[in-house]
Amino acid sequence: MVLRGAPLIGICAAYGMVFCVRESNSLEELIKKAQYLSLARPTAVNLNWAIKRILNMIKNVRFDKKRLAQYVLNEARRIHEEDRMLCYKIGRFGSRLIKKNAKIITICNTGSLATGGTGTAFSVIYHSRNKRPFVYVLETRPYLQGARLTMYELKKARIDSCLICDSAAAFVMKREKIDLVITGADRIARNGDTANKIGTFMLASLAKRFRIPFYVAAPYSTFDASIPTGADIPVEARPHNEIIDPIGLKGFDIKTLNIAFDITPASHITAFITDKGIIKSPLKIPSIFNYV
Amino acid sequence: MVLRGAPLIGICAAYGMVFCVRESNSLEELIKKAQYLSLARPTAVNLNWAIKRILNMIKNVRFDKKRLAQYVLNEARRIHEEDRMLCYKIGRFGSRLIKKNAKIITICNTGSLATGGTGTAFSVIYHSRNKRPFVYVLETRPYLQGARLTMYELKKARIDSCLICDSAAAFVMKREKIDLVITGADRIARNGDTANKIGTFMLASLAKRFRIPFYVAAPYSTFDASIPTGADIPVEARPHNEIIDPIGLKGFDIKTLNIAFDITPASHITAFITDKGIIKSPLKIPSIFNYV
Repeated sequence: MVLRGAPLIGICAAYGMVFCVRESNSLEELIKKAQYLSLARPTAVNLNWAIKRILNMIKNVRFDKKRLAQYVLNEARRIHEEDRMLCYKIGRFGSRLIKKNAKIITICNTGSLATGGTGTAFSVIYHSRNKRPFVYVLETRPYLQGARLTMYELKKARIDSCLICDSAAAFVMKREKIDLVITGADRIARNGDTANKIGTFMLASLAKRFRIPFYVAAPYSTFDASIPTGADIPVEARPHNEIIDPIGLKGFDIKTLNIAFDITPASHITAFITDKGIIKSPLKIPSIFNYV
Repeated sequence: MVLRGAPLIGICAAYGMVFCVRESNSLEELIKKAQYLSLARPTAVNLNWAIKRILNMIKNVRFDKKRLAQYVLNEARRIHEEDRMLCYKIGRFGSRLIKKNAKIITICNTGSLATGGTGTAFSVIYHSRNKRPFVYVLETRPYLQGARLTMYELKKARIDSCLICDSAAAFVMKREKIDLVITGADRIARNGDTANKIGTFMLASLAKRFRIPFYVAAPYSTFDASIPTGADIPVEARPHNEIIDPIGLKGFDIKTLNIAFDITPASHITAFITDKGIIKSPLKIPSIFNYV
């Protein structure tokens, strides 16, 4: 959890591959190390995506450690720079959806602390900042990425915002007349079902009930054509202590269920904001996967 | 927040009236002190209910401080003992709704730490313990009554349970096939709209979406016939630091919105579990208010 955020995990996996090359003496050894690296986190597809992209690139290259390390480093830098551009495009496309003084709800952290650029969902808000939006940020238990990271990013960008408890989302939607909900994604299945931080499905269910548009912002690397539906996305259960330590109950004998992600059905998503434009949900498979 | 839980607030207000009598020299002075006491918390009606009950009892009695204090103490003890009985009745009536191995979601704390007896929602679970229910407890941000109090009460009663983050409720409802949701209440309006801990409306909205029965357990003293609908119930906004202190952000300059309660429309409530029996929602006014 030193690194988190799906796009950032992908970028760092690419840089991590440089170390894997440096510590390998054959392609077989490298593949083994890459497989180990790919097990670090199960839900975000960007991890596997970046590792595969690098393995595909080098599989037919002669194994010369020094040259290969440089080669992989260059590709990692390309992935990093590319992500910066993807963030920019997502932000520019998405900002078309934001009206003046829009009231927005978001969850978790999707800005520059989670990506190589201005972010995914955060980038949309960032590129709309001249329209003076107001952002309600869910604190995002258990790890509090909303409270700890997104509130900081919004403040730095001088965007008006306010922290709320996750459980207040329903009442705030109703009372404050929220215009839209926007989140990032950890993995999007072929049918558009989306894995993201626990609480996203709650937001999507409530948004549907209140007829509030619900947008998922993500670069093409988050779409996983190999996964048919959300039921096939592995959902990470994280350690017990991540729930109880931050609230002062460290050491108490309390049973917990710490599901780190949930699956939002495509039917709950108004549209995906991607680097290729805004794509209505549920996905028309050819329209989205012809560039993956 | 040393004392919390609607019924417990009522009981303690009654005992508090003993101190008000001891420090007053006339009925007018006592009424002033009682008015001040009634401002301690706005949302739970039990506070006003207990104070009014005592004032009504003594308004025609000669103001003899010593005798009056004893008189009020006796009435406070009656209210206390009465609440113990109300809890028992709620638990017994409600347990009819609990099937064997029921999977239950609850929020906040509604047991012996919040009432004068076995509780409201908790009492229903407690009196069903031989049916081996499994309880998912929402941690209940910001003040964490679920994590800190309800998990303790369930453990003490040897009832199987598990703590989840508030934001996980939607996913748990879907994945774990929850049988029912049960909560307490701070105030119930004439039409059945119910004020309770922030997050209750979220649970009710989700329960409605997933067609899971949603029950509110409360004694007659929680029904407020003077309030026509939920829109008329004052909702307490509590201090900023209650959100950020428990999560290690004390002193950080973060804007927050700390709404302590929300309003659940009567249309989202399957039934009220009261000391007089189970009453379907929305309320038929005569059936419920003829005993208030």
